[in-house]
Amino acid sequence: MQAAATLFSAKPLAPPPAIPRVRSQYKPAISVPSTTSTSESMAAKWAQKTVVIPPQRRGCHLVTSKITREIEQDLSDFKCGLAHFFLQHTSASLTINENYDSDVQDDTETFLNRIVPEGRSAPWKHTIEGPDDMPAHIKSSMFGCALTIPITDGRLNMGTWQGIWLCEHRDHATARKIVVTLNGI
Amino acid sequence: MQAAATLFSAKPLAPPPAIPRVRSQYKPAISVPSTTSTSESMAAKWAQKTVVIPPQRRGCHLVTSKITREIEQDLSDFKCGLAHFFLQHTSASLTINENYDSDVQDDTETFLNRIVPEGRSAPWKHTIEGPDDMPAHIKSSMFGCALTIPITDGRLNMGTWQGIWLCEHRDHATARKIVVTLNGI
Amino acid sequence: MQAAATLFSAKPLAPPPAIPRVRSQYKPAISVPSTTSTSESMAAKWAQKTVVIPPQRRGCHLVTSKITREIEQDLSDFKCGLAHFFLQHTSASLTINENYDSDVQDDTETFLNRIVPEGRSAPWKHTIEGPDDMPAHIKSSMFGCALTIPITDGRLNMGTWQGIWLCEHRDHATARKIVVTLNGI
Repeated sequence: MQAAATLFSAKPLAPPPAIPRVRSQYKPAISVPSTTSTSESMAAKWAQKTVVIPPQRRGCHLVTSKITREIEQDLSDFKCGLAHFFLQHTSASLTINENYDSDVQDDTETFLNRIVPEGRSAPWKHTIEGPDDMPAHIKSSMFGCALTIPITDGRLNMGTWQGIWLCEHRDHATARKIVVTLNGI
Repeated sequence: MQAAATLFSAKPLAPPPAIPRVRSQYKPAISVPSTTSTSESMAAKWAQKTVVIPPQRRGCHLVTSKITREIEQDLSDFKCGLAHFFLQHTSASLTINENYDSDVQDDTETFLNRIVPEGRSAPWKHTIEGPDDMPAHIKSSMFGCALTIPITDGRLNMGTWQGIWLCEHRDHATARKIVVTLNGI
Repeated sequence: MQAAATLFSAKPLAPPPAIPRVRSQYKPAISVPSTTSTSESMAAKWAQKTVVIPPQRRGCHLVTSKITREIEQDLSDFKCGLAHFFLQHTSASLTINENYDSDVQDDTETFLNRIVPEGRSAPWKHTIEGPDDMPAHIKSSMFGCALTIPITDGRLNMGTWQGIWLCEHRDHATARKIVVTLNGI
């Protein structure tokens, strides 16, 4: 194995510019919150916490408010940044999808169960943890266990119809831990 | 719900080292651009903008140049960092795939349509927004709505054959908004 | 195409607080490493390197130790942050899944081969690079080519059963490059 590495240390010495750079193509018509504060009062910040979601039945669940309730005070400190959500499990997943009609959540669960065989017809070798375990692992890799969402003016900058889903792929669910990392200015 | 939180504030006081650390396993043979500038002139920067992609027909589309054209001036300011692309929609997706043969894009669309049933044979409850809407939501979670790509020496550090795809899953497409967040030094 | 842009520069001027903020809901019972150092000694850091994984046979492979071995010295410098892993290829993928029973890796490969047709029965137009190439591209978008994992107290903060998988989707594998970017304090 070959590897190349360089480590940067971002310790600024130079005085900051008095006015932040604003690109010429800035168009106020676009619905981006105004983020034109001067840079002097801003410093890079990191916040990290673990949010625990109580056990959910098998299926897809909208958990946006459950999560944001736990981080909104920290979030409000960030003018611009990124929020990272990391589910510490391999039989559930995090995804972003529709936040309005719960039928979308049900239909997505229907899809996952159709595409990943379970029970007698399934070809899995890994069966020791129950018939729903190997399908759960596959679904977890299909949807993924992590999300990164932009922060703008103290809020998660998702689209109007977007929400955070926790998809529980096991029949007998347990509480699920999400490591939330916030980074920005 | 239980939660544990710690907030870090990255406001440096200590003087920066005169020379950035370079790991001993650094091997110039690896095609990583030389990133050996001293750290004094570098400070953590954030840039955020919304890029709007005009309506695309249903299918997978290579949009690397459409996006980089909008951010290349900002990108050029970053020696090392991460670029995050967040599609604010639940019926389209962003993915990284082959940038050369458009047949790959067509075949991927063929795959998605084969794997996600649509129309009379589909089992969906959510049909009020048209027969292509529920399949679009599922495809969006399969491929995801966000990408993070490393920045090295002012450019997106993708592989030779990699490009950014916007996959439009609706029949009647609309313009799609992507929140781009750049962070680095 | 319309676009709106604002560039922030995170060059701090204000003196840092003597004590980092700790949220009131902090619960030491949660297994989050204690991260209560004062902020004065911390500064935002970036590290970026390319790790090369030697050729692996087609299938899913646990590569956590292969990767962490290459970055652990850099990782140990970060109290809190994010590690980003970017595979520079379109016919392999990176995913997080079970780190214990290798049957899970085999079953996942079985699933991928069942769901993406290959050979005579496959509908692909893109066949010039071999019958396994177009399926490889599709699998790469299904699982994705990038991961972001939280860093806590100098280590990747994954769950007990989580590991990093490199999924090789080609029959004749080659070495695979992963750009690793570390960012934090």
